Parts: sequence; C-alpha cells; structure tokens
Amino acid sequence: MAVGPDPRPKLASPSGIRLGATQAHLRTPDRLDLAVLELTPAAQTVAVFTQNRLQAAPVQLARQHLAYQPPRLFVVNSGIANAACGKAGFKAARRTCQAAAAVFGIEAGAVLPFSTGVIGEPLPVERVEAALPACQAALTAEGWWQVAAAIHTTDTRSKGASRRIALASSPDLEPEIDNGGPASPVEINVTGVAKGSGMIHPNMATMLAFVATDAQIASAPLQAMLDAAVERTFNCISVDGETSTNDAVTLSATGQAPMVPIESEADRRYARLYKAVEAVCQDLALAIVRDGEGATKLITVTVKGASHDQEARQVAERVVCSPLVKTAFFAGDPNWGRIAAAVGAGASVGLDWEAVDLYLGEDLCVVRGGKQAVEYTESAGRAALASEEVGIIVCLGRGDGQARMWTCDFSEEYIRINADYRS
Amino acid sequence: MAVGPDPRPKLASPSGIRLGATQAHLRTPDRLDLAVLELTPAAQTVAVFTQNRLQAAPVQLARQHLAYQPPRLFVVNSGIANAACGKAGFKAARRTCQAAAAVFGIEAGAVLPFSTGVIGEPLPVERVEAALPACQAALTAEGWWQVAAAIHTTDTRSKGASRRIALASSPDLEPEIDNGGPASPVEINVTGVAKGSGMIHPNMATMLAFVATDAQIASAPLQAMLDAAVERTFNCISVDGETSTNDAVTLSATGQAPMVPIESEADRRYARLYKAVEAVCQDLALAIVRDGEGATKLITVTVKGASHDQEARQVAERVVCSPLVKTAFFAGDPNWGRIAAAVGAGASVGLDWEAVDLYLGEDLCVVRGGKQAVEYTESAGRAALASEEVGIIVCLGRGDGQARMWTCDFSEEYIRINADYRS
Repeated sequence: MAVGPDPRPKLASPSGIRLGATQAHLRTPDRLDLAVLELTPAAQTVAVFTQNRLQAAPVQLARQHLAYQPPRLFVVNSGIANAACGKAGFKAARRTCQAAAAVFGIEAGAVLPFSTGVIGEPLPVERVEAALPACQAALTAEGWWQVAAAIHTTDTRSKGASRRIALASSPDLEPEIDNGGPASPVEINVTGVAKGSGMIHPNMATMLAFVATDAQIASAPLQAMLDAAVERTFNCISVDGETSTNDAVTLSATGQAPMVPIESEADRRYARLYKAVEAVCQDLALAIVRDGEGATKLITVTVKGASHDQEARQVAERVVCSPLVKTAFFAGDPNWGRIAAAVGAGASVGLDWEAVDLYLGEDLCVVRGGKQAVEYTESAGRAALASEEVGIIVCLGRGDGQARMWTCDFSEEYIRINADYRS
Repeated sequence: MAVGPDPRPKLASPSGIRLGATQAHLRTPDRLDLAVLELTPAAQTVAVFTQNRLQAAPVQLARQHLAYQPPRLFVVNSGIANAACGKAGFKAARRTCQAAAAVFGIEAGAVLPFSTGVIGEPLPVERVEAALPACQAALTAEGWWQVAAAIHTTDTRSKGASRRIALASSPDLEPEIDNGGPASPVEINVTGVAKGSGMIHPNMATMLAFVATDAQIASAPLQAMLDAAVERTFNCISVDGETSTNDAVTLSATGQAPMVPIESEADRRYARLYKAVEAVCQDLALAIVRDGEGATKLITVTVKGASHDQEARQVAERVVCSPLVKTAFFAGDPNWGRIAAAVGAGASVGLDWEAVDLYLGEDLCVVRGGKQAVEYTESAGRAALASEEVGIIVCLGRGDGQARMWTCDFSEEYIRINADYRS
C-alpha cells in the first residue's frame, strides 16, 4: 500500500556526480542492493546523521571520514544495517571502504559507507567487494533511480525529487537579466533520492537520503542549508515513532556550475538555492510518508497559536505519533476526541482548552472553543477523511508558535509488514 | 484477545465501603455502565489524576470536591468520557453530583464524578439521574466485581485484586504476637478494581482504578502511599503510548479496623500496608496490560546498569513504546535488532554500546558486549518468545540505575479494535 499514484518525476542530473547500482545478493536475491555515488574532486559534502546512541558501524566510520577530507565516493548497501555487530561490524565497514578505494583509485578515507536493513546480522563484506566493479561499470550521471531502487528495505516505491533553478553567476548580479552575456543566470540542478518506510521519526529514522547540486557553495553555508532543510522536512515526519541506528542525509555540491561560489548565507543566492534544496527534501520526506508501512493516507498536522514554536512542535508530535488518531483515520472515522486527547497531552501547562479550535482539511471546523462546533456534522467529518490526503489544523489560541508535521495512517498492513519482515 | 487465563481472584470486602452498579443505557444497551462506591463518613480518600492538559469535566470537578471535603460517594460511568464538551460538560458533571447527593442524602461536594469512554460526545445526564436509585438499591459490600464490569470500555475482562494482611493495632506492637489480647494483630483488607485496555501509558492513561482499605491512616501518609504505588505500577505500563483525558486512581481508607491510626510514614506499619497497596495496584496494572487491546503477550522490560534511574526509565520507555519491538514479539520473531535500536534511542549521551548486554526471559543472553552472543541461536530466541509472558533484560553496563516497565505485544487486532471502536 502507498498513498496516491507513484509520481516518479523526471530527475535532473547535476554534473559532477555519477551513480550506479548492482545486485550484490546481500540478503535477498535478484534485486539491486548495492549502489555507489561518485563525486568529482571539487565536490563538497555535508551530512546529518541519526541521533540514536547505538550508531551503526558505517555511520561512525562515515562521520570520521567526513571530518578529514571531502568524500569522493558513497557506497550504500541495503538488506543489512551492519549495526550492533561489534568489532566485526567496523571491520566490515572499513573493508568496504578499502575495497572501494582500490576499485575507484581513491583513498579509503574518501569513501563514505552507508547501510540499511536488518540490525545485528553480519554484513557479507566479501559480496560487497565482489560487486563493486559491477557498480563502477554501471556508473552514469543518470543513475539516480537505480540508486533509489538499490536502497529499498520495506519501501514499495523508489523515491526521487528534483528542482532546476536559475542562479546569478555572482552575488552582485540579478538572475533575471538573461542577455547571453557574463551576467546570464546559471542553471542549477538539485536532485535527491531517499529510502524509508518504517522506523520513521524525527531525528533521522531508518532513512537514507542523498541530495546533490552542481552549484558552487562553501561547506559552511552548505551545512547550514542541510541543517535547516532537514529540520523543516525529514525531522517533521513520523511513521511509527521509531529512531533508527543508520540514518543519514547527505548534501553534496559538485561545484561544476560556472559561477562565483556562494561563500556565506548572506549571499542572496543562498536563499534561492536553499529553497530548491528544501523543496527536494520535502518531496522526499513526503514520499517516505506516502510509502509509510501500510499507509493509505497522508496526514498533514499544522499547529498554530501555540505559546511558542516548541509547544506547537510537541503538540504536532503527539498527534502524528498517536496510534489512536492514526487508526481512526485509517477507518475514515472522524473521532476527533482522539485528536483532542493528543493535543492535550502535548500542550504545555496553562492551556485554556476553551480557546482551542480544530479543523479537518482546510476549513471544516470540528471543534470551536474546546467543544464540537455547532455546525459540524459527522457526515461532513467522514467526507473530509475520505480523501487520501487529509489535513488537521490545531489552533491553540494562546500565542504565535507554530509547527507542521506529516504522518500516515495506521493500518493492519503495518502489523503484517512488521510481523513478517525478516522472514 | 488477552494474555493468559482470566484469574478473577476472590476479592476481600473492606468494611466501610459499599458498591453497586446498574444499566443506565448511556451508550451501549444491555450492559452495566453506571456504578457507585459509597464510603463511610470516617473514610479518607486520596487520588491521582491524568496529567493531560485537556482534562475531562468530571476530572476537574472531582479535583475541586476532593480539595474541600472527604468524599462520601463516587459516581462512575462508562461509554461517554464527558471530555471536550465545553460548559455543557461541566454542567452535566455537576448535575450528576447533585442528583447523587439527593438520592444518597449527602452534600453534592461529597460526590466525586468519574467518566470513561468516547471523548467529545455529550453525557446523557438525565439517564444517569434516572439510574442512580437502582445503583443505590444494588449497594453491597461485595459489589466490587459489579463495579469492575460497569467501568469497561474496550476491556474484555474485569480487573480486580485483593490482599489481606495483619497489622499491629498500634505502632508499638509487633503484629506477630497474636494472643487474643489487645496486642493481637488486626486483619486489614486492601481491594481494588480497575479498567483500561487502550490509551494506556505512564501518567495515567485511559484507566480508572478504585482501591480501598479498612485500615486507619491519615490522609498525608495515605497520599504518599498512593503516589509511590502509582509510580511503581500504573506509571510503569504502556499499551500504546497514549495519555487520556479522564484517568484517575483513588485510594480510600475507611478507618473501620480497630487500630491506632497510622499518622506518618515513620510508623512501621506504613511499609507493611504500603506493600499490600502496591501489590493490589501491580495486579491491576498487569491486568490492564494483559487485557491491552489486541494483546497476546505480556512483556516485562527490566533495565539495569544505567547511569541513573532516569536513563533506565527512558530506555525502558522506548522499548515498551516501540511498535517494531511489539510487532516482532507478536510474530514470535526474536528480531533483537529492534530492541537494540530502541535501547540506543532511549539511552543518554556517552553510552558505550560495547558494554551493553540483552537477555530474553531470565537467562537467554542474546547480546553480549554489544553484539550477538556467540552461543545464541535463533531457535533459542524463538523458544523464549513462544511463551505468553516474556521478559527483556537490558544491561547498560555504566552504573546502578534501574527501571522496570510492562507492555503487551502489538497485533492486527489492535488496529481492528481501534478502527472499529465508536461504531
């Protein structure tokens, strides 16, 4: 199950990155399960990793490598997470980097390893080693969907997103002036792929996302850009409240576009590029929720009027994590009392419940002043829940704090998937 | 579904409390849905209420009444929670108290109202009023199971527990000396009933529990006793991570036993009575988990070796709230990686994963030093998960902090129940 039609958009190919995938037969035969992303030497990469205290060996090694030199290659496998495997796990991650370094003619420290899949089982590293040459042979600038497919675990769809924007070639020029001269805008591509379906929750759940742009941008503003985009997209989705051991999001800038580099957030092109990066991240994040395990509905929760953004966030988090809200939405049952209970559980001390309003969709007022709106009818509520994408708007009536999060509904299929996964 | 056979123990009848229930037809016909508990004038009552910021009208009114005088009567209905109903909800709760006061010949302020059921729908208070005389007519000291049945929502079993202990009649005497003289021990009864199945989580989920003893004890040590017992029992269970709007636990001491009252926690009889109260609360709490929506297994999570109790508690909470752990247990799949991920998500900064051990049951070591134990086999793991009551022991290897929590597994039946409830 997944929400809505599979969009599978056309993905632009930022220059300076090539991608390839192959079958390494790590856990499931006859599927792509090993991918590489090769970056030009000029590329800058920044990343955000899971905050779980149990960090998979590849996560720890990728952090270390990233601290010392700009990476040239990502090696990503699915099927096995290589987490909680002790020293053997680190050895396997290190061997992966060394083998890739030999095949691609780079330093092992320039390789970032990523793994996703079952925790606690050993990575058959010799199969990774054996399959790396095939990955290299498959390299192409258009390989994004291949990578997206190779990183599936319980995903039922591949997830990719792309934006193409025009940026001025230097901070002093307006991008609008396109006269073919040196002031002409530069076409910039931002493309990313992601995986994720279960174990999805803020602070990096079981998801991987790799985003690249051909823009030239220094690593400090690039990191700021990724942090902000993650905070507003991947950290705003929850499928099941779980936090994984292997999550990572990377943002690489290959620097291939003919432009004066963006050196700081003050450069006015920063905001323009940020917008494209956030849009790609949001598309990927929502694709993860739409493909949430057992999902039949995409639910957007917007909280306004909180005493501060943090309260709004806490309320949104309680609603998107509520199995009772999510099962009611699965059933198409506008049991708003469950939303109300989750709102009350997330709100801070001093909430005046009689100031609270709740809406379904954009404008169906369900609760006004803390109780059912006079004009509300159960059939209108059912109609609002009948569509595949449903909004919940919560107005706390006590300040300017706001937050938005996304989740999916909760179906028997979720249990079936997770009671069966591994077997 | 529920875990294990229905124990339905014999319940002792503390003197000084009478109970009765009837059919008020509030939401579902042909079932007990209104109960009263009548206390002798000498009784002291203390209570703990939900911490949800949306508190049902009866919760707010019960708090107010309790602050002014010792209650003489509890009126409890199921079917309708009388939460988020605006001023009409308060009016309905007040009318319930006034009607009960008239029928029982007491002050309205001596009545505590309790409701459990669907949030947001109005309480048909006239049906409560009409049914109160039948409740009074049904009063008996043996009415505990009647009350337990009348407070069901999605409960599939009634929940009751009892302890009978001997206490010295005064703080200076040993209870052991039973010579028939004035120093003979006094027989003390502690009995309670509870409801709860879904929306179960620490800080009072959708549960009600009423516990009474015939001991004489002042209200300050009585409150200390309830706070401590709740902290170690009801606040250590989770079915679905939800926090409700209506929860309450009361502890009443009717003072009918011939004894010098317990005036403080320093009285050595306090610890003895506490033990019985905690045992009753624990029986009730575990009965709630065993009857958790869709439950097929009772899971006890013990965390040891944490840097402090709070870390242990956070780890235990992540494990008992993990849908991935709970679906794996439902499937009987010893997918310990999911436990490991939850442990890592709950642990504090600086956890050395290579110091972590995990056990299933009492002694099956699954993870030693952060990776799968050498002698562990998948079939031994499956065997450990085959029983209806399963333990998980987590040793963090960094200090003396510990915690214990209980939950149930997570089955398709949970979704079915909650996608259907209300209809």
